[in-house]
Amino acid sequence: MSGAGYARVVEIVEQLLAASRPVARQHFRTPLAVTRKADCSPVTEADRAIEQAMKAVLQAEVPGHGILGEEFGLSGAEARYIWVLDPIDGTKSFISGVPLFGTLIALLEDGVPVLGVIDMPMLGETWIGQRDGAGRVSTRFNGASCHAGRCTELSEAILFATSPDQFTAQETRVFETLSAACAARRFGGDCYSYGLLASGHIDLILEAELQPYDYLALVPVVEGAGGVITDWQGRALTLQSSGQVLAAATPALHAAALARLAGKARAALP
Amino acid sequence: MSGAGYARVVEIVEQLLAASRPVARQHFRTPLAVTRKADCSPVTEADRAIEQAMKAVLQAEVPGHGILGEEFGLSGAEARYIWVLDPIDGTKSFISGVPLFGTLIALLEDGVPVLGVIDMPMLGETWIGQRDGAGRVSTRFNGASCHAGRCTELSEAILFATSPDQFTAQETRVFETLSAACAARRFGGDCYSYGLLASGHIDLILEAELQPYDYLALVPVVEGAGGVITDWQGRALTLQSSGQVLAAATPALHAAALARLAGKARAALP
Repeated sequence: MSGAGYARVVEIVEQLLAASRPVARQHFRTPLAVTRKADCSPVTEADRAIEQAMKAVLQAEVPGHGILGEEFGLSGAEARYIWVLDPIDGTKSFISGVPLFGTLIALLEDGVPVLGVIDMPMLGETWIGQRDGAGRVSTRFNGASCHAGRCTELSEAILFATSPDQFTAQETRVFETLSAACAARRFGGDCYSYGLLASGHIDLILEAELQPYDYLALVPVVEGAGGVITDWQGRALTLQSSGQVLAAATPALHAAALARLAGKARAALP
Repeated sequence: MSGAGYARVVEIVEQLLAASRPVARQHFRTPLAVTRKADCSPVTEADRAIEQAMKAVLQAEVPGHGILGEEFGLSGAEARYIWVLDPIDGTKSFISGVPLFGTLIALLEDGVPVLGVIDMPMLGETWIGQRDGAGRVSTRFNGASCHAGRCTELSEAILFATSPDQFTAQETRVFETLSAACAARRFGGDCYSYGLLASGHIDLILEAELQPYDYLALVPVVEGAGGVITDWQGRALTLQSSGQVLAAATPALHAAALARLAGKARAALP
């Protein structure tokens, strides 16, 4: 992406967040939003309203770009640039009144995520990872440069996963193998974990069952902070990935985690 | 507690929170506080600093009262009034940069918790449950009256637990039995879950391995909001309880949960 394109993307991201945040805040902890019906319609209502607000911005600003959203699917699949939107990542947090849900935005250039945004509407915390005109990726937290930690040893790492319930039986074996080697583990993070990793607060994340709109925005955020994020085989994350994600604060820690779970990860391929 | 005593307690709570909050905020996400040593000393440093600040208030204001703190143990065990302090509940959140840790304050009168405070320093959210001069207990969230939800059926309930790792093998069987009957479950709450329950956002919490300074403050908060909180046998929580806690938004939901786990809960008694 050229320098001019880079500046333009920053501008569009600001417009997207100006559109999404008020809608998320307006629905959070409202009686409607916390009604739990079998079809989860109140949650979908907030999801759809946020995604629609963001789509309107993109359609006005960059009508030639593609859009992949959690709620409304893919349009413009052949476009060189595709925006990937997850209006509410952390649905269980959202419907439980926990302010740890986020809005995720990714921009793909020829299938490669060149921009990633993790925005926490209720916390006022935003991570933006972006590749510049020269191909260098960097991450900013609330506007200031941020960096992942220095942990290189599994035995010193804090491992995060959103829930033990996200894993199949074979994936659980992988997770248990890895967490047995770590200093501590904590559940309940969703996208926020990747922001915490990018700011140096936690070291390692292992997840499964993620969708492209869940994981593509995380890639520039983690990589721009000096971390590493791949699937469980160490491959780059793309639109076609399995949804098994491993993120680490340092290349050494990532390599140690990959080595630790190697055989079991193959057996757990979806 | 008399009406005059009631007003006095409110005053002391305000002083305690004015003392604890700045210390918690100052230590959160500092390089020192997130260093993970084997002995966890940096966390203890924040814990100790907060507890010391609160103890200083109590020693100046009510020198005849007892104090039980997580860090400095029990003093004045024979006093009619004992303050129970947990400077940082949610240590893993705290050291991971997650703003879901809280400060807990309880006041016991003849062993009965007549005041409970859940304060979330980074979120600016505070629940205070208090018994008034006439023995009625009520809960306020950031100053406004708050109420638990109306859920009476396990099949509609969202169940919270801080972590599956808090349970023994037998306790895990109890937890699995209960969660199999619920609509959804989420991990990673600590004291915040009980505030969410008191405000009507979640319905059910099952935990184990809690200490008196973890659970005593929760009792007036949950009861004052119309909820029910007991041990896994349905007994009131006291300084001598087992640390197995069951909280529900309504008496009917609590009864349904107790019935569901009855046989297994007996087998899991510590």
